[in-house]
Amino acid sequence: MLGVFDSGAGGLTVVKEILALNPGISICYVGDTARVPWGNKKPDTIIHYSRQLTKFLIKKGANTIVIACHTASSVALTAVSEIVGDVQVIDMISPSVLEGLNTTRNGKIGIIGTRTTINSKSWETALLKLKSGLKIIQKSCPLFVPIVEENLEDHPGAYEFIDLYLKEIKDLGVDTLILACTHYPFLIPQIKNYMGLNISLVNPAKSVAKSFFPNIDTGELKIYLTDQTPLNNRFFMQFKGMGNVKINTLSLEEIEHE
Amino acid sequence: MLGVFDSGAGGLTVVKEILALNPGISICYVGDTARVPWGNKKPDTIIHYSRQLTKFLIKKGANTIVIACHTASSVALTAVSEIVGDVQVIDMISPSVLEGLNTTRNGKIGIIGTRTTINSKSWETALLKLKSGLKIIQKSCPLFVPIVEENLEDHPGAYEFIDLYLKEIKDLGVDTLILACTHYPFLIPQIKNYMGLNISLVNPAKSVAKSFFPNIDTGELKIYLTDQTPLNNRFFMQFKGMGNVKINTLSLEEIEHE
Repeated sequence: MLGVFDSGAGGLTVVKEILALNPGISICYVGDTARVPWGNKKPDTIIHYSRQLTKFLIKKGANTIVIACHTASSVALTAVSEIVGDVQVIDMISPSVLEGLNTTRNGKIGIIGTRTTINSKSWETALLKLKSGLKIIQKSCPLFVPIVEENLEDHPGAYEFIDLYLKEIKDLGVDTLILACTHYPFLIPQIKNYMGLNISLVNPAKSVAKSFFPNIDTGELKIYLTDQTPLNNRFFMQFKGMGNVKINTLSLEEIEHE
Repeated sequence: MLGVFDSGAGGLTVVKEILALNPGISICYVGDTARVPWGNKKPDTIIHYSRQLTKFLIKKGANTIVIACHTASSVALTAVSEIVGDVQVIDMISPSVLEGLNTTRNGKIGIIGTRTTINSKSWETALLKLKSGLKIIQKSCPLFVPIVEENLEDHPGAYEFIDLYLKEIKDLGVDTLILACTHYPFLIPQIKNYMGLNISLVNPAKSVAKSFFPNIDTGELKIYLTDQTPLNNRFFMQFKGMGNVKINTLSLEEIEHE
């Protein structure tokens, strides 16, 4: 069974892409909606949460774990890997970095994500390790997550903040922009429109979905959330029509005592 | 010693007002920055967190507790009161409701807050209990908190979202608007500018500060946070020049095991 965790419901966009390429595989998803968002929080806090969620997934029987959260992939990958034994851990960084390198023609790559993701320089470091001489520009876009959660991508206020965050990246003439946060793909039409025709957007959820997932049975998608509010509905909608989806509420106390 | 808790650092605006009217009293503040924000979360989750923080404050020696969070005041007051024994609990609702009633001349009162605060109808219920026949309009403004946390109140995007959230309230001709969230006072100039000269804004932090705080010694302000990021600096700045402030980091594990 494939275990997937995220700070909230956003990682379900990753699950959707995995299921599109690997139909019917058994997935257990846990989203820490009671403590979301993680994007402005300290690495130590994110490591603490990531380990609690990892232990939960292993207890549920996961033999492969996807860290479907860019912030956790940036700061908690080592800490998670230390406690999983033989279980394989897949993060959001490596697959999307390769895709970014394959995509760029002018060697100018932009990365946008949460503050903690950008501060970690995880994407930048991974890119430069594979190819020196790239021109990398990073920018945190803290208002994009709440704008997406509020379904306000098409509001004039959203356009103002897109300009605030992306102007410098646009002016630099990057041809490839990595959307290093689960919520940002909801802004693809607006970002494309702002950045112009020559931009290629890399959605790490699609990159990760191309990974090899060995020894995973077929089965259902079980979703566990530590807090359940109507805000999550946007992410559940992606599985509309899929019969084998179960949405469960999870007591945070169970996670706290992992 | 006065114990004060909030979902994050925002409740420090309440502490500032309390200290302005009660200089030098001993205060222990705990802000749950590791799990902030609470405004979109379920009442059960907020009750769980509020009880953990309350237990922490009582252990520290609080003999009066201020729930310096409007969302927690809306949904967790009863649950907190049940576990405090003789300790007095002060919430954000009662003092600001009285102030709102004293302020309005035309009987049209607006209330803005987080989604969970507004859904609870706590302010509306309290107002109508004291005076029937009021015309009350409530509106949740979920983007105001991240806009304030990002110091973007003066960005054109902020003006767009102020219009989105406050247009209906303005059109109704309310003369009194209660700012039922710790972050909203940072938007006072912009809200006044948008609403026009005839609006009176009620800041519940100032209303609560007028409460009677008996049996509190003089002493220092101790601030405990479960996660500490540069975002909190804006709230610490309020105490600049005050010598007796100590900022501590607290392990979330300590709170989880309360």
